[in-house]
Amino acid sequence: MSQVTIQALAKELNLSKSTVSKALKDSHEISVETKERVLRMAKLLQYKPNPYASSLRRKKSNTIAVVIPEVADSFFSQAIKGIEEIAQTKGYHVLIYLTYENSEKEKKILEDVQSGRVDGVLMSVSSETSSTEHIDVLHAAGLPLIFFDRTIQKITTDKVRTDDYESGYQAARHLIERGCKHIAFLSISSHLDIDNNRLNGYKAALTDYNCAVSEKMIVLCTNNAAENYDILLQLMKKKQRPDGAIASVEKLITPFYLVCRKINLSIPADVKVIGFSNLATAQILQPPLTTITQPAFEMGKTAAAILFKALEKRNYSWREEDVIIRSELIIRDSTDMK
Amino acid sequence: MSQVTIQALAKELNLSKSTVSKALKDSHEISVETKERVLRMAKLLQYKPNPYASSLRRKKSNTIAVVIPEVADSFFSQAIKGIEEIAQTKGYHVLIYLTYENSEKEKKILEDVQSGRVDGVLMSVSSETSSTEHIDVLHAAGLPLIFFDRTIQKITTDKVRTDDYESGYQAARHLIERGCKHIAFLSISSHLDIDNNRLNGYKAALTDYNCAVSEKMIVLCTNNAAENYDILLQLMKKKQRPDGAIASVEKLITPFYLVCRKINLSIPADVKVIGFSNLATAQILQPPLTTITQPAFEMGKTAAAILFKALEKRNYSWREEDVIIRSELIIRDSTDMK
Repeated sequence: MSQVTIQALAKELNLSKSTVSKALKDSHEISVETKERVLRMAKLLQYKPNPYASSLRRKKSNTIAVVIPEVADSFFSQAIKGIEEIAQTKGYHVLIYLTYENSEKEKKILEDVQSGRVDGVLMSVSSETSSTEHIDVLHAAGLPLIFFDRTIQKITTDKVRTDDYESGYQAARHLIERGCKHIAFLSISSHLDIDNNRLNGYKAALTDYNCAVSEKMIVLCTNNAAENYDILLQLMKKKQRPDGAIASVEKLITPFYLVCRKINLSIPADVKVIGFSNLATAQILQPPLTTITQPAFEMGKTAAAILFKALEKRNYSWREEDVIIRSELIIRDSTDMK
Repeated sequence: MSQVTIQALAKELNLSKSTVSKALKDSHEISVETKERVLRMAKLLQYKPNPYASSLRRKKSNTIAVVIPEVADSFFSQAIKGIEEIAQTKGYHVLIYLTYENSEKEKKILEDVQSGRVDGVLMSVSSETSSTEHIDVLHAAGLPLIFFDRTIQKITTDKVRTDDYESGYQAARHLIERGCKHIAFLSISSHLDIDNNRLNGYKAALTDYNCAVSEKMIVLCTNNAAENYDILLQLMKKKQRPDGAIASVEKLITPFYLVCRKINLSIPADVKVIGFSNLATAQILQPPLTTITQPAFEMGKTAAAILFKALEKRNYSWREEDVIIRSELIIRDSTDMK
């Protein structure tokens, strides 16, 4: 049986196509009686509404997807605000999908967004993602994809990043200048470009300032708060414990502070710490935290602006822009010389 | 069994068709008693609210929408985790829409979710929402809607809440027990049920413990951080400033701490403070913050479980559950007797 169209319904009901279409969308412009007539006929003729049909016709869902690992990190909540600010001016909805750092979930999400649900994707890859096949598929489908913050260098697409290498370098140099000799680098992924860039910056600073780079000082944490507490407790209880630490992600800050309190290490007297973080509470912590603060809002805005530029183009080809917006070192008491 | 119509319901109830229809759409023209009568009968006769909507529901987008004011608040990021945990087991995607406390945006989002994009909606209303027409429309369309945290009492639907009244009472009583005489209540909305419940609990505690309730101590803040800083600065610079404060939302905590630091007020010696908050950093603030901590993860899980129960039912009628999960007072240094 051929598919029943809105046109066929309209003919059968002796109504205009537009009235039928509005009735099916439950528009307030259409009376309850007419809606009921339309629905009865739709049921009778087994009309199958296709929620995406109209958007496919216009090739516009008026929706963009933001695929990110989590929202608990203040970087992402601020980046989303930047994205929303641009989307708002374009009359677009923003859908947020969370991967929870799980590459299997990320894969399913990318399959889902290809159904016509969205016009384009802004994405920050999960820490578990090492294979890129699922992203290549999106690429092949021609759906515009812009990476922001956590990018995959080897995939050719537009990217909006911050200066992770320089920030890692700057963080380590600041701790060296404040007298630290044994600086730990606390990471959550060994294959994310962003983490490796920060790590390489840290290593370069240590080398430039004649500090030894020790693998024991490069600590891989997880996505579990309790596990991170244990990992950091083991690290800080060691005889040869660090006298400085760089938390490469925000979620490591609370367990680090709690561990220091637990074993009576004073920040900054016994150990100094810098966090990559956009936490509003950084300034009211005990002690206030020195941060590398990323331009999260600006990065979100810029990524969204590039996506809309792509959507407005007739012929879009990937990898036209690789924008780097600088992060900022904000010095507070957690790295004081005391 | 033949389909139960509105006519049949009306006959059974001895009401007009229009009254029944309005009652099913939760119209404000109909009394609560009549609505409840109609809903009971609708349930009894297994009335299906809208054949089109239920067929759409059967069609399944395998997606649910979460409509919330923001993700910067840790309550919401934890609630989303709870929602995702359930959705995951059902093979569903979770789409997050942000209203940024704007009821116009909320309205547009609710129009969008009716397009067949999602099978059901979990929602926490924006602080600006006072009219409920846009929600009534969703109701009339037969799309399952579960409120969580920020509910609208007068709309008949499933709700998952916490004990806001009791928490407001408990927060105020704790401050009174710690010696406070002039306790400020810092709010962000004068019409959100959740804020009013907390406020009423606070007022009741003050009355029970013979403290005067003063309108000057009930301070309406905004959604803008800089504005809140100014509002709180004015409050705390007054000669008759509060010696205790309850921040009814998380975002007021950082400006409150900063204001106290700015004008050299010591927490808790000069002013004690409690925050409604799920902030991980509450325990490492200067000083650690006494909190009313909501069961955010559990609330998200429960709301999602109710939604999936609704989706799996043949005959879903709204307002079957009103679940209340208790919050917890966690006492820390910010309310110490010093």
